[in-house]
Amino acid sequence: MVESKYGQSGENIKMLGRNLIISERNGQVMPALKFGVKAWSENPTKTVVEARGFEMIIDEPEGLEGTNDGANPVEYLLAALAGCLNVVGHIVAKEMGFSLRGIELELEGDLNPAKFSGKDTDERAGYKEIRVEIKPNTDADEETLKKWLETIKSRCPVSDNIANPTPIKITLK
Amino acid sequence: MVESKYGQSGENIKMLGRNLIISERNGQVMPALKFGVKAWSENPTKTVVEARGFEMIIDEPEGLEGTNDGANPVEYLLAALAGCLNVVGHIVAKEMGFSLRGIELELEGDLNPAKFSGKDTDERAGYKEIRVEIKPNTDADEETLKKWLETIKSRCPVSDNIANPTPIKITLK
Repeated sequence: MVESKYGQSGENIKMLGRNLIISERNGQVMPALKFGVKAWSENPTKTVVEARGFEMIIDEPEGLEGTNDGANPVEYLLAALAGCLNVVGHIVAKEMGFSLRGIELELEGDLNPAKFSGKDTDERAGYKEIRVEIKPNTDADEETLKKWLETIKSRCPVSDNIANPTPIKITLK
Repeated sequence: MVESKYGQSGENIKMLGRNLIISERNGQVMPALKFGVKAWSENPTKTVVEARGFEMIIDEPEGLEGTNDGANPVEYLLAALAGCLNVVGHIVAKEMGFSLRGIELELEGDLNPAKFSGKDTDERAGYKEIRVEIKPNTDADEETLKKWLETIKSRCPVSDNIANPTPIKITLK
């Protein structure tokens, strides 16, 4: 069993809400964290997503035939990565012993809509790559920050799920 | 050059906003769509993300030492996938010629926090897999829906970026 600080604190675990469950087996706390969301279409482009009582509105801009009530799915993907890099960035800075007063990030990617649109193409459907510029507010030197960056990238769950293959199993209900 | 319906409509392109750009080269409209977000840390776990004027708030629950002001990064990742499946689901249903009145989705995944927490482990940082249950409101038969599902999965940009490797290039600013 892998040790987990989340697995060791009953009080903390209770606060994680219904979508975040620590599995227990044989009286030992297992480290798996479960996350889940529910979603429904409000119209063909607008999706309402619910996670632990938080509501997220996803839509497409009018130029992509949407109703423009929220950021779109590929912008949400960038947002997920930004949020993850912030959290892990602060954890790693603390471990490395330097003061991080804040982070600013810019993320972007290009995608070819051909596959999305149903064209016969060898192009992939999603971003070809994702570029991130990260500006930490800190006095740490460049050498320290390079090490910090490498560590963040490898430990961020979202960057792992994007950079490396993650099976998606879709079933009809 | 790959044909793109978005590249052929000047009016539509104008409406895509500043983060969505059609590249032009040699007088021909290239099909690349660019998406981007800006983000900053409000505190070590809370990230504010801005995309075309839409604001997304990402945070960790108190049980993960956060301030619980929004869904967390790995929930945002599931939200991005849900939103993408909705959009592509409706496009493909229309192409296949069946009526889709709506979609409900449930998405979940398990991750081991060991790597995230800095433990020495062979476990990956992110979700091991993502499970999606999709409930289309339609009269289409099961055979049709199975084909629909396979097509959606292959054409959804977010599922492509999660299921297949996507390079992430992070630079210090």
